[in-house]
Amino acid sequence: MVPHLVTANPGPILELEKKLLDSNAAIERWFRLQWQAHQPPFYASVDLRNAGFKLAPVDTNLYPGGFNNLSEAMLPLAVHAAQSAIDVICPDARSLLLIPEKHTRNQFYLRNVARLQAILRQTGLDVRLGTMAEDVTEPFRVELPEGIALDIAPVQRHGNRVGLDGFDPCAVLLNNDLSAGTPGILAGIDQLVLPALHAGWTQRRKSKHFAAYDVVVESFSQLLGIDPWLINPYFGRCGEVNFQDKTTANECLESNVEALLFRIRAKYREYGISEKPFVIVKADAGTYGMGIMTVKDPSEVRELNRKQRNKMAVVKDGLQVTEVIIQEGVHTIERVNEGVAEPVVYMIDRYVVGGFYRVHAERGTDENLNAPGMEFVPLPFASDCCMPICTARPGDEAPNRFYMYGVVARLAALAAAVELQMTDPANTAGIVPTLVTEAA
Amino acid sequence: MVPHLVTANPGPILELEKKLLDSNAAIERWFRLQWQAHQPPFYASVDLRNAGFKLAPVDTNLYPGGFNNLSEAMLPLAVHAAQSAIDVICPDARSLLLIPEKHTRNQFYLRNVARLQAILRQTGLDVRLGTMAEDVTEPFRVELPEGIALDIAPVQRHGNRVGLDGFDPCAVLLNNDLSAGTPGILAGIDQLVLPALHAGWTQRRKSKHFAAYDVVVESFSQLLGIDPWLINPYFGRCGEVNFQDKTTANECLESNVEALLFRIRAKYREYGISEKPFVIVKADAGTYGMGIMTVKDPSEVRELNRKQRNKMAVVKDGLQVTEVIIQEGVHTIERVNEGVAEPVVYMIDRYVVGGFYRVHAERGTDENLNAPGMEFVPLPFASDCCMPICTARPGDEAPNRFYMYGVVARLAALAAAVELQMTDPANTAGIVPTLVTEAA
Repeated sequence: MVPHLVTANPGPILELEKKLLDSNAAIERWFRLQWQAHQPPFYASVDLRNAGFKLAPVDTNLYPGGFNNLSEAMLPLAVHAAQSAIDVICPDARSLLLIPEKHTRNQFYLRNVARLQAILRQTGLDVRLGTMAEDVTEPFRVELPEGIALDIAPVQRHGNRVGLDGFDPCAVLLNNDLSAGTPGILAGIDQLVLPALHAGWTQRRKSKHFAAYDVVVESFSQLLGIDPWLINPYFGRCGEVNFQDKTTANECLESNVEALLFRIRAKYREYGISEKPFVIVKADAGTYGMGIMTVKDPSEVRELNRKQRNKMAVVKDGLQVTEVIIQEGVHTIERVNEGVAEPVVYMIDRYVVGGFYRVHAERGTDENLNAPGMEFVPLPFASDCCMPICTARPGDEAPNRFYMYGVVARLAALAAAVELQMTDPANTAGIVPTLVTEAA
Repeated sequence: MVPHLVTANPGPILELEKKLLDSNAAIERWFRLQWQAHQPPFYASVDLRNAGFKLAPVDTNLYPGGFNNLSEAMLPLAVHAAQSAIDVICPDARSLLLIPEKHTRNQFYLRNVARLQAILRQTGLDVRLGTMAEDVTEPFRVELPEGIALDIAPVQRHGNRVGLDGFDPCAVLLNNDLSAGTPGILAGIDQLVLPALHAGWTQRRKSKHFAAYDVVVESFSQLLGIDPWLINPYFGRCGEVNFQDKTTANECLESNVEALLFRIRAKYREYGISEKPFVIVKADAGTYGMGIMTVKDPSEVRELNRKQRNKMAVVKDGLQVTEVIIQEGVHTIERVNEGVAEPVVYMIDRYVVGGFYRVHAERGTDENLNAPGMEFVPLPFASDCCMPICTARPGDEAPNRFYMYGVVARLAALAAAVELQMTDPANTAGIVPTLVTEAA
């Protein structure tokens, strides 16, 4: 299914697209060099926003769900990529313990788990499912409508190893973002844990990710000679916000919103953009589209009503929100069948393996689409993200847009790699990794 | 386009298929371990024959043409695989010299070159085309109907490096099988040459490839507990055949044909197969479907007529045939639109990247199809060769057949890897590499 797409209007993004297409070989070589110094995340999904004049990642998920939303035609790519990752990470691995989220009643999520298991099995691994849910003491089976059954068993710890009853895996792959905290059962185990435990949401911060993204975009923009802002949303951070007590002023939040709107306005003037600037305030840790608000004026965060406060105060698994990231809002000009849409790009290791449009018929172009009511339309990424048509005109050719999406998504994945190096507990000196550069 | 396929009748191949599907994870793991010890060929294509009761490779090409015949949907797989190969072989490479065959007027072949160049460019390499043709002294351009232009320049040597005028590549990729001999211009150069020069047809022998295939199949059959014959054609070799002088008896050829037919007949009896056994006699070095004959009785090689002698005596680039391989003939039961068909599977590095059916409407099920009049129908390999449906019944499901094809083709690629280790001029002791085994 090829969705009906509204294409970017002329503007800076067309120049950007032209640059990316013209520099195709240099870009691919640049990525190749970076991946030698920065181990890519095992997998990642990146939410992109295409404003027509700007294309930027707004969220990078290191425990991607939604593999079930990728087009079937893309699966061999995912298998190749997983094979390649396993070859590097654990070449002798024979078995893998996949630990999904606990919400085992969500059929969509369970389809994602089934899809992931199928992909990983094709790499020659015995892949089994374990749960850390404390109320699960016996193995159980979940039947999916497609005739697929998932067998899930409680994770057990023996000494410095975890496994299932009768199953001692070589490595552990988390599809559980650890919002509820780093589980003790995984602490200090001998087995490799993917992604590393410090990628979990109790330790990870979006602001650190985007700080790493700044480093990545700086280097990439120099390579191409472009304004980094065209692919990078401004952001700020507040570390001690109080959403629950309405007497607290949250001055940091207000001043950050003001400063960000000021900077965005300046850029809009520079490029002659007439849209209304906005920022997104969201929890610095956490996911699932919870705790997110669109702000167009500093006064809006000064006078939060109770409903807004409640919405912002708590995210998944009851995590309290006191740290927020204030991020430049990027309009989306993409529409699929009338609904406002944003592309989500999936990667395994260094490879783009597919994507889909997240579509929300009831949301505006400046709103978060990751909310109940959203739908998914697989992207026709198959031949397009990897094989741009370099002779085609920019703007009017979907294949080239998808190449551009793949490039920006990989920049975000590279930022995640740099972020995880930066935040590695072993990096006690707090060294910021540098990107590979070379003489032209 | 999904071709109309005639499916295997019940028989040993269904059991084989079931074994392969049941052992999917073990097979993929086995390959992963083998590739750690045996560097896969940069690329390869394998001609398979599916007799219904037997599935075997009959030819392994290390300079594959025909990338243009692969389905467009498969191209991202090829790009991933090439990226993976480049990462291992020459991670810092920036540029690659691709040397195609000299016949620059064949539009089909030129499309293959254009396709290869496009795939390789996506890995971030500057890929240029060079020719070793002595009559080419200036760069020239070939325009293809699709609006693609190929720029080809004469290869130059400076000291221990080759390149083009103003282009000093990191590595050289041959898409030229060196039937005309190992060119002096490539001897002893500092740059990496892919595939290694001893893979060229002046040095390579099919009989050595199938000797290596014996080693591979031996190990693989033990893994699965199957009769190796189900995936391995018997073969013999004669080193001094004289096709030109009709007074020469060619006793070696006759006795080999006889012995092979005897062994095949015994196997046919064992499995209750009523087909008529046959052998294929072909040049031990060389390609392009030249110098090949089907033989059903030893008397046929005793009394070769002049036409047959002429056909067998010389292959591509005037190479004289004195060494032949006598190979068990494998019937093909595959048909596409009424034409007799055989699958050809393409690999880059360790990955299956696509395939097609070679179809010949005027040939029999026991004849060579690589002959004028053949057509190509892309295989619907996309999701099928990498993602078998393990719950489906064997035999009646195309996806599973393609998985089986991908497995047997990879066995042949692994045999090529072992063969090139065996025949490496640096392997002066003639050590036969062993396959990786492990405790279960």
